[in-house]
Amino acid sequence: MDQTMNTEMVAQLEELLEKRSYAKAGGLVKDLNPADAAVVLEEMSEQKTPVLFRLLPKELAADTFAYMSPEAQELLVRGFSDRELDEVMEQLFLDDAVDMIEEMPANVVKRILRHVDPTTRKMINQVLNYPKDSAGSIMTMEYVDLKRSMTVEQAFERIRRTGVEKETIYTCYVTDSRRKLEGIVTVKDLLLARNNEIIRDIMETNVKSVTTHADQEEAARALSKYDFLALPVVDAEERLVGIVTVDDAIDVIQEEATEDIEKMAAIAPSDRPYMKTNVWETWFKRVPWLLFLMISATFTSGIISSFEDALAASVVLTSFIPMLMDTGGNSGGQSSATIIRGLSLGEIQYRDVPKVLLKECSVALLCGGTLAAANFLKLMFVDRVGVAVAAVVCITLVAAVVVANIVGSSLPVLAKRLGLDPTVTASPLITTIVDAVALIIYFNIAKLILGI
Amino acid sequence: MDQTMNTEMVAQLEELLEKRSYAKAGGLVKDLNPADAAVVLEEMSEQKTPVLFRLLPKELAADTFAYMSPEAQELLVRGFSDRELDEVMEQLFLDDAVDMIEEMPANVVKRILRHVDPTTRKMINQVLNYPKDSAGSIMTMEYVDLKRSMTVEQAFERIRRTGVEKETIYTCYVTDSRRKLEGIVTVKDLLLARNNEIIRDIMETNVKSVTTHADQEEAARALSKYDFLALPVVDAEERLVGIVTVDDAIDVIQEEATEDIEKMAAIAPSDRPYMKTNVWETWFKRVPWLLFLMISATFTSGIISSFEDALAASVVLTSFIPMLMDTGGNSGGQSSATIIRGLSLGEIQYRDVPKVLLKECSVALLCGGTLAAANFLKLMFVDRVGVAVAAVVCITLVAAVVVANIVGSSLPVLAKRLGLDPTVTASPLITTIVDAVALIIYFNIAKLILGI
Repeated sequence: MDQTMNTEMVAQLEELLEKRSYAKAGGLVKDLNPADAAVVLEEMSEQKTPVLFRLLPKELAADTFAYMSPEAQELLVRGFSDRELDEVMEQLFLDDAVDMIEEMPANVVKRILRHVDPTTRKMINQVLNYPKDSAGSIMTMEYVDLKRSMTVEQAFERIRRTGVEKETIYTCYVTDSRRKLEGIVTVKDLLLARNNEIIRDIMETNVKSVTTHADQEEAARALSKYDFLALPVVDAEERLVGIVTVDDAIDVIQEEATEDIEKMAAIAPSDRPYMKTNVWETWFKRVPWLLFLMISATFTSGIISSFEDALAASVVLTSFIPMLMDTGGNSGGQSSATIIRGLSLGEIQYRDVPKVLLKECSVALLCGGTLAAANFLKLMFVDRVGVAVAAVVCITLVAAVVVANIVGSSLPVLAKRLGLDPTVTASPLITTIVDAVALIIYFNIAKLILGI
Repeated sequence: MDQTMNTEMVAQLEELLEKRSYAKAGGLVKDLNPADAAVVLEEMSEQKTPVLFRLLPKELAADTFAYMSPEAQELLVRGFSDRELDEVMEQLFLDDAVDMIEEMPANVVKRILRHVDPTTRKMINQVLNYPKDSAGSIMTMEYVDLKRSMTVEQAFERIRRTGVEKETIYTCYVTDSRRKLEGIVTVKDLLLARNNEIIRDIMETNVKSVTTHADQEEAARALSKYDFLALPVVDAEERLVGIVTVDDAIDVIQEEATEDIEKMAAIAPSDRPYMKTNVWETWFKRVPWLLFLMISATFTSGIISSFEDALAASVVLTSFIPMLMDTGGNSGGQSSATIIRGLSLGEIQYRDVPKVLLKECSVALLCGGTLAAANFLKLMFVDRVGVAVAAVVCITLVAAVVVANIVGSSLPVLAKRLGLDPTVTASPLITTIVDAVALIIYFNIAKLILGI
């Protein structure tokens, strides 16, 4: 459903609810996909959201609830009767319930937990205890488990009996009596096998898994690498405790890319969408880095001041400072963005470092050379600054680009080696470093060539 | 399998192959996951890759082939006997075959196409004809189709009969006699239904689909939004022509994030991983933007030259130029990165633009104010430049941050409105614009306050 259709439907629904034509409004939404219904509900005026939510068929209502933002969920929960809360919680998958609870204020959480059965409450609490952004924190415990001695027929029976409430049934997990993971078997394997075959004989025993404390990114990367629909999560004793499903892995991949982009732009990453954060939050996410970079940039003031005599002798040199700084910064930014992304996708490993540095230097010489050639022509024939000044500018240009690429490619690797996040060494930080180095090179070459 | 284990295994295999202990080498790799086997094969020395490939069990060999890079695939294909090529092509899924063929030189493609059956050849050619990065170009035609009049039992029979060769069997597509898509039914629905129920009664008719010419990103976004395992692709007459599976959607999401990051760093995006591109390609991807930005930056030289008198009168002003320019650029970069990512994830819509601009201005005033306050203290008590110069610098700082955020947030939206790619308006371009504006503000405020 696209944006325009959405807006139209919301307007139409608002009008119907205004006129109390509830049956018509209900008819309009009853066949929506839950993801679309969630968008429609969130776009409505706040006092109408609960009204429309109650018009949804029960199952659609629970599914829709899972797709809504924490703010809208809280709004709904506060208005729910005890029975309504019971119904929604019963339908909700475990990982969606945990996602919701993580974002709610304590008093709402308390009320929600009173409305789930003790087993579910125990599972929710267990998942809530795993560290933020760990595989354990995004897993669900609702998977189908089988025993190695079952026949294919018995396996299907078990899937039919327990499958309704499971988030995925397509990969089943074979565990022993101590819940140790012994193998996996897919519904495809089961469908293509004979009814009397034994699970032990058809299961895949080379199972990939992550531990509960592994980073959620590691889990997402494994799912993507092996093209799995779900990945088992095991504890330190290799007992199966849950699974991460592919839809959650996609969310993690999107989130991590957003985080990388934010950090590369010197913003503290935020879990919440831009339109949902207020001005103060946004300020708080941006100002620390701006402040740090501004203070670092004052070093360049010091450098310029210390070469005041040189500048006074040849005032024209001042006018090329911005161009030299910008070009160095841009080139370093290209280099660091490439390396950071390569590290984050696992395309670049430590052992590649010498190769990377060599390549970045070669590219820098080529790029710097091209830029210097273009600039030399402009300086000689457009600006007519004379060959000595043109030479100073162009030599600095090449040197700045080379330094920028060396800094830009080695800092992210160094950061990763030190256990830091490589993304913080992106363009803004590198620009600041390269600026200072470029200025020092510039003035020294100027002194040398112009003899000032 | 992690990196260290990988490297160890490669070393061990190299040694075994050197000693011609083929049986031992084969035993070592026979239980590998295909994705891991592909990594191992690619890490081996080039002349040993084909040897080891031949030691893999047949089915694993074909699966592994699908995970390998185009370069390694080409190396293998060139060495294949006709029978080996037959075997691999028969096992390969259609979309993997297309991926491979897209990257091969013409003579290799010809040979490959001679070794597939005519139906598959027709399908491959059809997919190859869809535009690059369209939904059609990443889809597979190997899906399970059902008829609405079938019973659940008949559906299972059909899945069992045709499912082995299908990339996914978990979502089945119900089509009429003219291949028009009428509904979908999942294997979960089928398993939970009674054997004599009719597909028509259990199928979901509210089907989400994309057209063959839709952008692959649109398909990936729909898969992620609706948590689907596969998304149907239809032609202009709404006839089903293929499906996009979730594993391909993840690849698209990763690729697009990489592309966004590259473009935001002013690099022409590349399909190939960093370690596989040579120096000239990398140079070619980076130098055009550097050149364009360098030439744009020369405007700043013009601005500085035109205020030469003011600078000569108060030399200290020069030393703050880099700090002012960097801070403006950083702030504009934060703003544009946030807006670009929001647009790309669909979190920000056109109707949000007034709200976005208002928010960015408010954040800019807060950030600019904080930075100016910190700087004022430093200028007064550390640099001791006098209140007039300090005022000039701090007022410029606030103005530059405000301008930067307005430019940084409105340019991406404007670009999108004009049908251009918002990512090209990222940090480097914005830095260049903000630099020029910041300098003009700086010198004019200086003239006003310092009366020079």
